[in-house]
Amino acid sequence: MTVEHITLENILQKIKPINDEWIKKAKERTSQLVMPPRALGRLHDISERICGIQKTLDINVDNKAFVVMAGDHGVVDEGISAFPQEVTNEMIKTFIKGGAGINALARNVGAEVWVVDIGSAKELDKAFLDKSSRLLIRKINKGTANLSKEPAMTREEAKKSVLIGFQIAVDLFQKGVNLLGTGDMGIGNTTPSAAIGAVITGKTVDEMTGFGTGIDGRALIRKKDAIRRGIQINQPDKKDGIDVLSKVGGFEIGGIAGCILAGAYCNRPVIVDGFISTAGALIAHALCPKAIDYCFAGHCSEEPGHKIMLKYLGLDPILNLGMRLGEGTGAALSMGIIQGAVKMFREMLTFDEANVSK
Amino acid sequence: MTVEHITLENILQKIKPINDEWIKKAKERTSQLVMPPRALGRLHDISERICGIQKTLDINVDNKAFVVMAGDHGVVDEGISAFPQEVTNEMIKTFIKGGAGINALARNVGAEVWVVDIGSAKELDKAFLDKSSRLLIRKINKGTANLSKEPAMTREEAKKSVLIGFQIAVDLFQKGVNLLGTGDMGIGNTTPSAAIGAVITGKTVDEMTGFGTGIDGRALIRKKDAIRRGIQINQPDKKDGIDVLSKVGGFEIGGIAGCILAGAYCNRPVIVDGFISTAGALIAHALCPKAIDYCFAGHCSEEPGHKIMLKYLGLDPILNLGMRLGEGTGAALSMGIIQGAVKMFREMLTFDEANVSK
Repeated sequence: MTVEHITLENILQKIKPINDEWIKKAKERTSQLVMPPRALGRLHDISERICGIQKTLDINVDNKAFVVMAGDHGVVDEGISAFPQEVTNEMIKTFIKGGAGINALARNVGAEVWVVDIGSAKELDKAFLDKSSRLLIRKINKGTANLSKEPAMTREEAKKSVLIGFQIAVDLFQKGVNLLGTGDMGIGNTTPSAAIGAVITGKTVDEMTGFGTGIDGRALIRKKDAIRRGIQINQPDKKDGIDVLSKVGGFEIGGIAGCILAGAYCNRPVIVDGFISTAGALIAHALCPKAIDYCFAGHCSEEPGHKIMLKYLGLDPILNLGMRLGEGTGAALSMGIIQGAVKMFREMLTFDEANVSK
Repeated sequence: MTVEHITLENILQKIKPINDEWIKKAKERTSQLVMPPRALGRLHDISERICGIQKTLDINVDNKAFVVMAGDHGVVDEGISAFPQEVTNEMIKTFIKGGAGINALARNVGAEVWVVDIGSAKELDKAFLDKSSRLLIRKINKGTANLSKEPAMTREEAKKSVLIGFQIAVDLFQKGVNLLGTGDMGIGNTTPSAAIGAVITGKTVDEMTGFGTGIDGRALIRKKDAIRRGIQINQPDKKDGIDVLSKVGGFEIGGIAGCILAGAYCNRPVIVDGFISTAGALIAHALCPKAIDYCFAGHCSEEPGHKIMLKYLGLDPILNLGMRLGEGTGAALSMGIIQGAVKMFREMLTFDEANVSK
């Protein structure tokens, strides 16, 4: 399927709730597996929900991939990050070399890593691009505008970011990917994520904003101030996901929202990573609440607002390991758990098959 | 190495603390990896501790195995389990067929499953035994005695159970296994585990005792009563791990304690599974507290006393997924996380190698 001519409105209309009939059939099966009732706890819930998502008991997550969306943020002018903006492109190169955290943890579960330049501030050099088959250049603009002073992007750019993420994920699903993880890279991107979180969940900027990659107390004050001014000046409408994304968001966050919508559109599970990916899930939820039923929350990050976002979305994180890197790393670790849940469902014998007394 | 002539006292004398120098070197390395400081949270702690255990920065957990210790319990006469005793042998057969929870979850991380009949009540049939290369028959006795009325086993049997577990684990380490998980099977074995927990941690039987595989409220009353009587009649000495094991323990619990001591003896990490395995860790700790530094707690089970045991041992569980199956299943899921931590340590580039600005 090419989605070139599909509009966002078309996509949203075609997303259906996950299938309760398959979940019911799945529960019947897990109740027969050779163990005390529900003895594998959340593995039951995970595998049964995948039956509802993939609409089969013959569930499969053998073909795994990550999409790491990279973008830059004009709000770094406010002095809200511990790292310089050139790190975004330096990290894109590191992803392609296979040397970043997400590469190590994706290899750990046998998943591919696709990297998307959806809006970094600088151009990657041509020689590098030619060698990089899993790098997709879909640059919408060279970074967003400074959200503390004006909308981060136009409404058209916001829609475009979602559609780009949607198209990339749909392409992967059509190539056979049956479990997708989201990831992000973008210096300064906990700032728009906290802004989205505050607007959509209704919690305060103080509750939603943390130290990101490790800023000091003075930078945290500047960061909160930038977010407050951004919300004040832009007045995003929390009921309109595209409005929120365009005014206080980022290109990579829109791209992640698109990946999540693609999972729901194609009946494929999507693992949401940490704070930035979950800001993308908030945008997807504002556009189409039922899309979130196709998502798993890989982990709960150290960024304090993440817990609030997850609660708002009704997602219970699989892992809680004190991580705060992004890139998809929390989603990658949880992929092994989700794959374990699927193996439990597929490979355990029933009491009858095993000849075990009940 | 054959340990036929090694005494328990010899083993305990030879166990050394994990190596702080290697942990320090490991921390230096992780501080250079291309991410904000400690951004992968517990993955840093896990990988650095493995450097201290394996005494190298060239850490490796590629060769993974489980030992599932199976034994029976005379205390089932008190009506404390939801399942009949023949299930122990039926599950041994299911493990060998590859159809149990631990098999699915061990395959998920590429680990072998070894099964040990260290004291089931019945004999396995000869035809079955001949086909089962990963089943080890090391039967000490046909189940323990009823701990609510007399010592579960003799002091010699208790020592023997620890030495059997030790020998089996040492053999696996010598064959190249570099990450071992413990598992258990034994109808009724949350009862001796709760008894060991109450004796060693000093918490009450009420706090330590739960519904196991899913008994009803009346059976829970019988179970607590049996444990109380067992402790009252046998008067186990909490400072003497062999005394506690012999009076209120089980053969499989002793075998697990032996596996843990073997990890410490051979400088190999051991992942402790749930409630029963952690009772084994309490015995190992009573014999040699520093052996626990070689252990990771795979998960926190639903059995309420498990949290208390882990706290007593100073172990922070990696996963918390509402599981309560045993067999090694929690350890198996956490193996993927531990392997991820090792991959992070080995495969991520440094800031310098990646040419990323700090």
